[in-house]
Amino acid sequence: MAEKRTELSDLGEFGLIDRIAEGIERQHSSSVLGIGDDAAVMDRGEEYSLLSTDMLVEGIHFDLSYAPIQHLGYKAVAVNVSDIAAMNGTPEQITVSLALSNRFSLEAIEALYAGIKAAAKDFKVDIVGGDTTASTSGLIISISVLGRVAKNEVVYRKGAGQNDILCATGDLGAAYIGLQVLEREKQTYLANPQMQPQLDKYQYIVQRQLKPVARMDIVHELKEAGVVPTSMIDISDGLASEVFHLSKHSQVAFALYEDQLPIDKQTYDTAVEFNLDPITAVLNGGEDYELLFTIKQEDHKKLEKHPDIHFIGHAQALDKGNLLVTKNGNRVPIKAQGWNHLAEK
Amino acid sequence: MAEKRTELSDLGEFGLIDRIAEGIERQHSSSVLGIGDDAAVMDRGEEYSLLSTDMLVEGIHFDLSYAPIQHLGYKAVAVNVSDIAAMNGTPEQITVSLALSNRFSLEAIEALYAGIKAAAKDFKVDIVGGDTTASTSGLIISISVLGRVAKNEVVYRKGAGQNDILCATGDLGAAYIGLQVLEREKQTYLANPQMQPQLDKYQYIVQRQLKPVARMDIVHELKEAGVVPTSMIDISDGLASEVFHLSKHSQVAFALYEDQLPIDKQTYDTAVEFNLDPITAVLNGGEDYELLFTIKQEDHKKLEKHPDIHFIGHAQALDKGNLLVTKNGNRVPIKAQGWNHLAEK
Repeated sequence: MAEKRTELSDLGEFGLIDRIAEGIERQHSSSVLGIGDDAAVMDRGEEYSLLSTDMLVEGIHFDLSYAPIQHLGYKAVAVNVSDIAAMNGTPEQITVSLALSNRFSLEAIEALYAGIKAAAKDFKVDIVGGDTTASTSGLIISISVLGRVAKNEVVYRKGAGQNDILCATGDLGAAYIGLQVLEREKQTYLANPQMQPQLDKYQYIVQRQLKPVARMDIVHELKEAGVVPTSMIDISDGLASEVFHLSKHSQVAFALYEDQLPIDKQTYDTAVEFNLDPITAVLNGGEDYELLFTIKQEDHKKLEKHPDIHFIGHAQALDKGNLLVTKNGNRVPIKAQGWNHLAEK
Repeated sequence: MAEKRTELSDLGEFGLIDRIAEGIERQHSSSVLGIGDDAAVMDRGEEYSLLSTDMLVEGIHFDLSYAPIQHLGYKAVAVNVSDIAAMNGTPEQITVSLALSNRFSLEAIEALYAGIKAAAKDFKVDIVGGDTTASTSGLIISISVLGRVAKNEVVYRKGAGQNDILCATGDLGAAYIGLQVLEREKQTYLANPQMQPQLDKYQYIVQRQLKPVARMDIVHELKEAGVVPTSMIDISDGLASEVFHLSKHSQVAFALYEDQLPIDKQTYDTAVEFNLDPITAVLNGGEDYELLFTIKQEDHKKLEKHPDIHFIGHAQALDKGNLLVTKNGNRVPIKAQGWNHLAEK
């Protein structure tokens, strides 16, 4: 009898996570929350500990032919810190594991670590451990981050209530459009190695792709404003995908207003140059690492003057579905496209 | 001017770790101990948290042509738990990150997770998170483990004093000799695929290689006996290498007695069959995941009847050097050979 073989690409990353999570039973009362949010939550008596981990694989998540290795180190830390920010927590420690082939010299690894250390300083985390090993091909970076949060300030993906206001920080779609620029320049270079890359006019969006920032500033400012979001997630796979996560966990649906979606002029202009719809880039472009969260109506006035928090929609009954209200008033269902790593290869 | 290029193989893993650790400054008072022990130590008020991480790479750490993927999952958890045991702590949570190529089906990943879940049950840890991504080649498993330990019970690599007794648990060299058996069977199979592997008489040592056990039982029994070791490490790279770590951190040297080194009969006989020196296997064979620790002289009587703790040497002044006292009374300097992953490829 032939062995059954189910392709991972048919399941996708989230389908696989659901299968893996099946039958996992909690053995420690300290394990408050496991798989299914941006970070795990552990009870430490006075407060909660937060633990999250992310892996970056060469050829899947990054391409060293255009990503400076120092920026890559920075990014690897930022994406982990972003998971702690998404729980409204403060990161404190990271471990850094590397698998590297003999293609990498000591100087390359020191450059990688220069980026890791710069991010550790910017986001105030201590590098407390890790593992370094050989790899048969390419570079793999696995970082785990430990953080903390007061018990009455932890924010989950669940918790959004009807009529809560949906907020997004910064601007969206930039990292995705920046990636298109980098890919085009790479092809141009491969076709003609004499050509120098023309990146000046794309500086902002390229930076957003290569060296993203975790929004710890927002976490601190929310605290100063006395606002605890009712739900939160970081925007790593694209706005639409994250809206669906908040929707599923909170059992509400969201209406998003097209004219409120934050997009930088450089992102918009470059999307048009590439014949891409800017709103699609905002909805489905990943890797912005901004925060998406909901607040109660009465907290709106505490944040309305914040220059970098945008009120992009509101929560409604689940059966209304997640939808986009276009500029001319049409209501269009949103599809969660996200980025299926497992289907890519 | 040519860019300087230093090969990682010239530095080795420990040399690289030293270079990386340079210039790392602590930003949080909660970071009690960082790089340089089996786990990082964080202050949580009443107690310490412990954090460690290990990465297993296909083609470097394991070969799926003879390692059943379920055992591999078990081993990946065990080697992490072993790091918490080496701090005299109790593991509680793990995160599991996987990078996988499309060679792997859902069924293969479920088998891997069956092993991970079995180990999680055996060692009483909760799987609280992780990351799953594609890989351009092969399987990479990165696990992080979070544990806890009472502040007055934490054990570091430093702390051994002169005249302390050096103890090792279980038996040593088995995992290394088991690997030789597996490699030989693989070659035989490649030469003639009709041949079935003959592993029955090597069952114990093959199991030691494929499915090692973290000695949490010893951690609990030390506590019951009222013994807090003065220093401890787990034996992952080989006894000699770990003796050097304790020596360096504690600033003492060790005398080991050849006739006290614990070796299983199957290990001994098979080493001889392979024309390998059994004592070399004990000293330099890795992956046994036993514990190596020192106790004060007065604690000897509390442990002398323990069937699985062996008193293999004692601590002496650093300038005497680490040495082996052979059966006929010769004193031979020990060399830390260990396993330099970075020089292997």
